Amino acid sequence: MRVRHKSWAKPYIESHPELIVTNPEEWVGKWDSRFPKQQPLNLEIGIGKGQFIIEMAKKHPEINFIGIELQESVIAVALRKLVDEQLTNVQLVETDGALVNTLFKPNEIDKMYLNFSDPWPKKRHAKRRLTSSAFLGSYKDVLKDGHQLEFKTDNRGLFEYSLISLNQFGTNFEYVSLDLHNSPEQEDNVETEYEAKFSQNGPIYKIVINFKTE
Amino acid sequence: MRVRHKSWAKPYIESHPELIVTNPEEWVGKWDSRFPKQQPLNLEIGIGKGQFIIEMAKKHPEINFIGIELQESVIAVALRKLVDEQLTNVQLVETDGALVNTLFKPNEIDKMYLNFSDPWPKKRHAKRRLTSSAFLGSYKDVLKDGHQLEFKTDNRGLFEYSLISLNQFGTNFEYVSLDLHNSPEQEDNVETEYEAKFSQNGPIYKIVINFKTE
Repeated sequence: MRVRHKSWAKPYIESHPELIVTNPEEWVGKWDSRFPKQQPLNLEIGIGKGQFIIEMAKKHPEINFIGIELQESVIAVALRKLVDEQLTNVQLVETDGALVNTLFKPNEIDKMYLNFSDPWPKKRHAKRRLTSSAFLGSYKDVLKDGHQLEFKTDNRGLFEYSLISLNQFGTNFEYVSLDLHNSPEQEDNVETEYEAKFSQNGPIYKIVINFKTE
Repeated sequence: MRVRHKSWAKPYIESHPELIVTNPEEWVGKWDSRFPKQQPLNLEIGIGKGQFIIEMAKKHPEINFIGIELQESVIAVALRKLVDEQLTNVQLVETDGALVNTLFKPNEIDKMYLNFSDPWPKKRHAKRRLTSSAFLGSYKDVLKDGHQLEFKTDNRGLFEYSLISLNQFGTNFEYVSLDLHNSPEQEDNVETEYEAKFSQNGPIYKIVINFKTE
């Protein structure tokens, strides 16, 4: 998602160190201490404006959520929502999702979400897609054994690529929908802001996998 | 595909023993001898009225094709086309595709095709779907190591099921299209009669896999 620069973003982020982390490497292995309750830790990479993670956190007070987003003017909007909602089970991190295994210890995460990631449609950029093998390797490192990764997108090319990449990496497919909004599971679906806006244009694809233990 | 009984089918089939086999168990390991040329052997399970296998055979004279179909009045239509086309690289077999590993020796087949198989939408019939694990086991037996199975369908539920089944069986995904008729590969796509008729109604899904060698 590309958005215009927001001059209020940086000072606003700096004024909320209790909710958003800009020096994540200092919190490796200590993320639990940023939450009032010690409970399972779920991670969303690329939260955009945060609608999904905030809805999930409201629905699941028994889970702690960490949301990563690289773009300052986007994560600042998510932060503003978080401040409004006064949730204590969400922490935001302004950093690159590519670095996930430098931010968490092995097995620190209970579940992961990727939603409407950048499709990087050009073949020469395939390695930048968040479901490419290098990224999958780092997700596997930080996810507890046998735990789930959920991935949603409306981009057909990205989903086709991801099915092959996830299969060839050796992940175990648990659930696939090729039209989530016309599936029984839509009932429990928490939408991202992008999904709410664009799902009329075509199907939403979803897959749930786990990383098999060797 | 369900079609009405055709009284001409049985005598017509009996009058063409050079093109259609009704006692397949007698040909196990000897299929090559039914073709004038010794060349790779491709197998389609559930040929319907035969449009796909006959087009493929015309396009690929360097390959021998065997087509299996259980319904007499359907395979009789395919046989009639085959007689008209005077192709020598197609043999038909009137039998149940479920029995594939009783019809062929291990490694006798170079490539397999499943096109628009019966979706068996009820959960309690899942084991009858041609991409369920028992069937996959028999395909693996007869296919040469590392060779391909191609599967096309317009049935979303069947394709979602098949992605999971093929993944969990341990096959290796080589190609996936979630809208074949709007993919670059459509250029080389050989349509079945069903596909030509119904593809306006929604996307055609396709996957190409191989059975990994242990």
